[in-house]
Amino acid sequence: MINHIERANILVEALPYIQQCYNKTFVIKYGGSAMSDNGLLRAVMSDLVLLSLVGIKVVLVHGGGPEINDMLKKIGKKTEFINGLRYTDKETMDIVQMVLCGKINKNLVDSINRTGGKAIGLCGLDGGLLKAKRRQDNGVDYGYVGDIVDIDPSPVFNVLSSGCIPVVSTVAQGVDADVSYNVNADTAAARLAAALGAEKLIVLTDRMGLMRDPEDETTLLSVVKVSDIPGLIMDGVISGGMIPKIECVVEAIRRGVKRAHILDGRTKHSILIEVLSDEGLGTMIL
Amino acid sequence: MINHIERANILVEALPYIQQCYNKTFVIKYGGSAMSDNGLLRAVMSDLVLLSLVGIKVVLVHGGGPEINDMLKKIGKKTEFINGLRYTDKETMDIVQMVLCGKINKNLVDSINRTGGKAIGLCGLDGGLLKAKRRQDNGVDYGYVGDIVDIDPSPVFNVLSSGCIPVVSTVAQGVDADVSYNVNADTAAARLAAALGAEKLIVLTDRMGLMRDPEDETTLLSVVKVSDIPGLIMDGVISGGMIPKIECVVEAIRRGVKRAHILDGRTKHSILIEVLSDEGLGTMIL
Amino acid sequence: MINHIERANILVEALPYIQQCYNKTFVIKYGGSAMSDNGLLRAVMSDLVLLSLVGIKVVLVHGGGPEINDMLKKIGKKTEFINGLRYTDKETMDIVQMVLCGKINKNLVDSINRTGGKAIGLCGLDGGLLKAKRRQDNGVDYGYVGDIVDIDPSPVFNVLSSGCIPVVSTVAQGVDADVSYNVNADTAAARLAAALGAEKLIVLTDRMGLMRDPEDETTLLSVVKVSDIPGLIMDGVISGGMIPKIECVVEAIRRGVKRAHILDGRTKHSILIEVLSDEGLGTMIL
Amino acid sequence: MINHIERANILVEALPYIQQCYNKTFVIKYGGSAMSDNGLLRAVMSDLVLLSLVGIKVVLVHGGGPEINDMLKKIGKKTEFINGLRYTDKETMDIVQMVLCGKINKNLVDSINRTGGKAIGLCGLDGGLLKAKRRQDNGVDYGYVGDIVDIDPSPVFNVLSSGCIPVVSTVAQGVDADVSYNVNADTAAARLAAALGAEKLIVLTDRMGLMRDPEDETTLLSVVKVSDIPGLIMDGVISGGMIPKIECVVEAIRRGVKRAHILDGRTKHSILIEVLSDEGLGTMIL
Amino acid sequence: MINHIERANILVEALPYIQQCYNKTFVIKYGGSAMSDNGLLRAVMSDLVLLSLVGIKVVLVHGGGPEINDMLKKIGKKTEFINGLRYTDKETMDIVQMVLCGKINKNLVDSINRTGGKAIGLCGLDGGLLKAKRRQDNGVDYGYVGDIVDIDPSPVFNVLSSGCIPVVSTVAQGVDADVSYNVNADTAAARLAAALGAEKLIVLTDRMGLMRDPEDETTLLSVVKVSDIPGLIMDGVISGGMIPKIECVVEAIRRGVKRAHILDGRTKHSILIEVLSDEGLGTMIL
Amino acid sequence: MINHIERANILVEALPYIQQCYNKTFVIKYGGSAMSDNGLLRAVMSDLVLLSLVGIKVVLVHGGGPEINDMLKKIGKKTEFINGLRYTDKETMDIVQMVLCGKINKNLVDSINRTGGKAIGLCGLDGGLLKAKRRQDNGVDYGYVGDIVDIDPSPVFNVLSSGCIPVVSTVAQGVDADVSYNVNADTAAARLAAALGAEKLIVLTDRMGLMRDPEDETTLLSVVKVSDIPGLIMDGVISGGMIPKIECVVEAIRRGVKRAHILDGRTKHSILIEVLSDEGLGTMIL
Repeated sequence: MINHIERANILVEALPYIQQCYNKTFVIKYGGSAMSDNGLLRAVMSDLVLLSLVGIKVVLVHGGGPEINDMLKKIGKKTEFINGLRYTDKETMDIVQMVLCGKINKNLVDSINRTGGKAIGLCGLDGGLLKAKRRQDNGVDYGYVGDIVDIDPSPVFNVLSSGCIPVVSTVAQGVDADVSYNVNADTAAARLAAALGAEKLIVLTDRMGLMRDPEDETTLLSVVKVSDIPGLIMDGVISGGMIPKIECVVEAIRRGVKRAHILDGRTKHSILIEVLSDEGLGTMIL
Repeated sequence: MINHIERANILVEALPYIQQCYNKTFVIKYGGSAMSDNGLLRAVMSDLVLLSLVGIKVVLVHGGGPEINDMLKKIGKKTEFINGLRYTDKETMDIVQMVLCGKINKNLVDSINRTGGKAIGLCGLDGGLLKAKRRQDNGVDYGYVGDIVDIDPSPVFNVLSSGCIPVVSTVAQGVDADVSYNVNADTAAARLAAALGAEKLIVLTDRMGLMRDPEDETTLLSVVKVSDIPGLIMDGVISGGMIPKIECVVEAIRRGVKRAHILDGRTKHSILIEVLSDEGLGTMIL
Repeated sequence: MINHIERANILVEALPYIQQCYNKTFVIKYGGSAMSDNGLLRAVMSDLVLLSLVGIKVVLVHGGGPEINDMLKKIGKKTEFINGLRYTDKETMDIVQMVLCGKINKNLVDSINRTGGKAIGLCGLDGGLLKAKRRQDNGVDYGYVGDIVDIDPSPVFNVLSSGCIPVVSTVAQGVDADVSYNVNADTAAARLAAALGAEKLIVLTDRMGLMRDPEDETTLLSVVKVSDIPGLIMDGVISGGMIPKIECVVEAIRRGVKRAHILDGRTKHSILIEVLSDEGLGTMIL
Repeated sequence: MINHIERANILVEALPYIQQCYNKTFVIKYGGSAMSDNGLLRAVMSDLVLLSLVGIKVVLVHGGGPEINDMLKKIGKKTEFINGLRYTDKETMDIVQMVLCGKINKNLVDSINRTGGKAIGLCGLDGGLLKAKRRQDNGVDYGYVGDIVDIDPSPVFNVLSSGCIPVVSTVAQGVDADVSYNVNADTAAARLAAALGAEKLIVLTDRMGLMRDPEDETTLLSVVKVSDIPGLIMDGVISGGMIPKIECVVEAIRRGVKRAHILDGRTKHSILIEVLSDEGLGTMIL
Repeated sequence: MINHIERANILVEALPYIQQCYNKTFVIKYGGSAMSDNGLLRAVMSDLVLLSLVGIKVVLVHGGGPEINDMLKKIGKKTEFINGLRYTDKETMDIVQMVLCGKINKNLVDSINRTGGKAIGLCGLDGGLLKAKRRQDNGVDYGYVGDIVDIDPSPVFNVLSSGCIPVVSTVAQGVDADVSYNVNADTAAARLAAALGAEKLIVLTDRMGLMRDPEDETTLLSVVKVSDIPGLIMDGVISGGMIPKIECVVEAIRRGVKRAHILDGRTKHSILIEVLSDEGLGTMIL
Repeated sequence: MINHIERANILVEALPYIQQCYNKTFVIKYGGSAMSDNGLLRAVMSDLVLLSLVGIKVVLVHGGGPEINDMLKKIGKKTEFINGLRYTDKETMDIVQMVLCGKINKNLVDSINRTGGKAIGLCGLDGGLLKAKRRQDNGVDYGYVGDIVDIDPSPVFNVLSSGCIPVVSTVAQGVDADVSYNVNADTAAARLAAALGAEKLIVLTDRMGLMRDPEDETTLLSVVKVSDIPGLIMDGVISGGMIPKIECVVEAIRRGVKRAHILDGRTKHSILIEVLSDEGLGTMIL
């Protein structure tokens, strides 16, 4: 049992962190377990609303989660893969857009509102936020998958300046055709963080952070410099699906974002702990 | 061939109508053929963008259209009907939300943007725009169907004041349970028009307007007063699905909207003709 | 007879032009037949008000017209000419100021207001808008004729930002003596366009534009580059009174105005046709 | 010789008067000797600029003066009088408008500017400031003479809020015909003062103020209440041309203007003395 | 040892309290042990800065403390008492003003600044914040002791709107003489809370709150209604120096302050605990 | 006796000076006889309020005067001097702060308010206005005497923009220790003038200005250039306590202040005479 004096002390200890972050913009890439587990989701929502109340400008960028596959399965759609990546035909793209912008996005908006915040859902089509063209990847075509070519952050700024939390789905307006494209959510979060002049990009993942030995939590790398990244990739410390994730982060920092954090979405309140204490969860990249 | 002098004259003739409507808010309830036919859709998009450019604050509220049924069919969902109204179970509600907020809404946003406007998609969940409770209809339960109990128009005002066109899906936040409700789009448009202090509510339908003899276009009623409505219902001039539609309109006018128009969505540019000329298409209710 | 669908189409076709010009500043130099013929004047007033309503910042700079001579004749004043230019003595200058600022300017203001716009009349004396010194022309003295030495566009900006159309008479405050000077209206329009950062300078004249053969309308030059002008003067295509007019236009473009148009003021709605269609009336200089 | 300490004391003694008037609006009706005598005119200009600098919102409404008659004489126009009032035919009205708006108004603007202030000239046509209809006076028609039916003070407010001094000519837009009307300058000043919520209306005249015996300056009435006016008219203390002048003042006070002053325009700096000292020149009506 | 998850939970539990208080004004009457004990003072400073950071508009009104007596002793001033109240002669008043406005006030400002906030010190003389007249108490004269007759809260609003914390000394400008008066700090806090439209008035005292039996902490009255106060005074529950304190609080509530709290200033962070938890320290009066 | 016309003339003659100074910032260093003599003090207060009303942004920086010594004497404190400068121990510093911030500052605020202005008192602690570190002077330690290392003028700007006159005591927040420092008022005024982008720094002294022969007033130097100062020091024209005063002034001008004035505080209204006439009192340094 923690008594009220101790509780007050804990609040007071958060003071310098709140002061540091006041009026700064934090872009949070949200996905994985933190999104599919209800208890974790509720904890993330609390964290967002609390950060927003203490004066931090929070922007949530979310990925797809298993709902897309569930829906594809429901309509009996067979997913084709090319080089391990889903081939997104027109019918799949329609489902992707519906699930991202209509289900996940609006449910997140609703969850934030019910936690006491005020959220507005956006996708890349709204106000021309994200513009993309079809991915050209050494002759391989992945269908309705786009690469971001332009960002107009004004719809996000408008939502922030009205005191609300923007929740962003990563469907983009095609500039090379009259279609929508699915764009990678990590990339979109990184690019949006840069366009907003964000202080921090926080990426929630299903791992502790970067570890020298992925089996051994004591080998966690707390701080990694951008200049260390190529070596870590060569050493295999960063590998597989982590490589593109980290490349997004590096890109964000190159474009002016101050710091990025790879956080464990499976730990409740990992965002709050990272931001409002000196615990140093996960890996900070700067 | 219309020469350039005649073209200029036509522009000039629109002048007094533009002046009258300057800075006024028009809520347009959009659905039916005007939404499912591509040519008509493009014409409506042009109308919206043009009205917006000449200083009218345009708000688009859209219904569902056949896409909801298509999607339900795709997943093999059987629709149950009660008293001729769809019973909306949880699975159906999920599909409704996805199709309305994720597909139709965002596609309309994209169409407006590609026509040269700037649109932002919203649903009733965003910023607490629409709040509803489960419909209680003489002991009949229609599932996830809600009646609006509260409107906070500030998200729509924010979009308008940023110079964009709000496109609104009529999914509402439940106040009596932690769920979303499907609310009737005509009602939502009418209530929103009142909450915005709109000058006009324009309802696009698949008929010419109110006609004494539905088979005879020459019997069109150009102007109908709210006080005439009960008589017209008794006489059977307003009947069937038109009754609730008209009741929404009457409600809007009672709550302060200046005028309402039942327009034929099957006529290209019917909105533009109504607003910027004295043609007097359809039925005006005041 | 043009039916309402065709009318709507014509309005819709103006859409991209309206979008292009939105919030841009257009300075219109007004004079000649377009000012002395009542039907043409009414057409110009409609054009101004319509352009203003669709979001263009319209500034009207007017010349003198025959009213000055009429008034001089009325008081029995003999006009003296030097090198083909009127010598403006003090009494003549008083008449010029009265007719320009008191009659033509205020009548134009009234015409715009009666067409549904809102205009405010200014002259170069108001708020120090135009400052001039006595013209020194190789020892020839033209009396109270001034050359602009300074422009303070703030009174024009104030009128524009209050949503009104500024109408400007080209009488300037003397900096070298406690007198008013008459300044050339073409020059004033060009200099004001530059000071306002205008998008377009439109000069209404009593000819079709620049023509290789002034007798043959098919030889109209639709587009002329500033770099072509010296050649056209040498070839005699630009000659006589057109030379100083064109020099003003060139000066405006050198000082940052994007485009200039020599339009035929004798064609009704030539401004509207030029701005809101791709007809390409007259000569565009860029 | 007044030494610098005495000078400083005089400035300091003005302090409480400046404080009282800070940010208040004063409408000054200007005419008579104060306008035709050059030395007096310069003194009035200084007074206006000084009052404006110490934070008073000064609005100048001017009458016609002898220039109108001079101009009518110049063109050989015979003036017809009806009941002692000039009959204003169309040609006369044109001259009135030209002289008021083009000569007197702009010359006053120029004088204020050259004294170090910043003035903008307006007439009742600008921005729809003054609207009038033809005077109907017991079957007598005075031609283009109007009675004010509506005032839209926003053009004056715009000029004041841009930090400039509005100078107003009393030519009004006809609402019953497409013409301009000459309106009485005293009435216009009084009505404008009321529409602006002015603190003071100051009327410059060619007499000391109201005197019991017009031949005896010691009988000056320093303070007169509105309720005393009818008695003073009956007693003949207010008579002749003073009656309509006083009626304007009474009207202004009835419509909310705090105080009115009948000042002697023949005394240099009478405005300054009245406003910034407790000398109590002229007659104050309240 | 409290681990980081528990810490996060404690922060999250503060969320609803932060939401409730967002943008509300809290006036804190500061004095007693909480001001004289250094550890308690530091805790109060942290509380103020933290509340200010989470969006609460904090206003600090402080009393005198022992420093006034220390200073009087230092200069060898004998204090005279009348009816148990200090008689404040001119020399004493000078000391009171110096100590309150020059020592205590500025030291509090400095402490807040060093804790990471931004404070501005004011007294009732600044900008005419507090106006008072000499106390007339049944023929007894207490010297330079004043009763507040007028409050102009604009200096406090200015400080709040510049994002700073106002710290207020209760010295007032005399309206009946050219002197400063010492006004009671509890009264000043209560009146200022009302003038600011404050949500809460928090009074720090050296007791737990109101207790039925002052010797028995278990008899603390957590909630007291204004209507209960007279009975509590009659029963002797409220007595002695507590009576005027409670009367101030009642006055504040009568003038529109929502709630008042009598808190124990000897408990560290009692303000934070009261505001950001449901612990319910002290006595709430409403 | 000066009649009202002469009074008006004197006001009018101030016009160009008022125009020149409009909206400019003047920092006035106040001290010496002008502060200790009641009649002079009242004259300075009038001057400040009058300058403020005619649109000058007045900032008053005051020194200590004899009140500090009086207070030290009262508590029986012996002042220790090192190199002719007071050694400021902690107890003395407390007295300095109390007298400066609590007595002199607030009394000046009250005097300005009673003269019809609106003043707010500040010291270097408020909002972090002045930051200082302990003076290090060739191994000599003067105790709690600081040298300014940083200025944040925003509290002064806030007071000015709320239309009030800031009155500043020169006690600074220590950056090298948790203490307040006494900083030299001349230096503080000079540095603040630079930080505010002031037009003028006016230093009130107890002498006429700089004089070649201090015994002979006819040798007053009316204008001195910064480049002349070293020579004047070498010649002994500037000597003793005047040297550091002049060095402050030179520093202010080097940092961008336009002009500085050494004025005789013993002459009533010397500020007003200097600012609003061409009398040229004292010495102007530029």
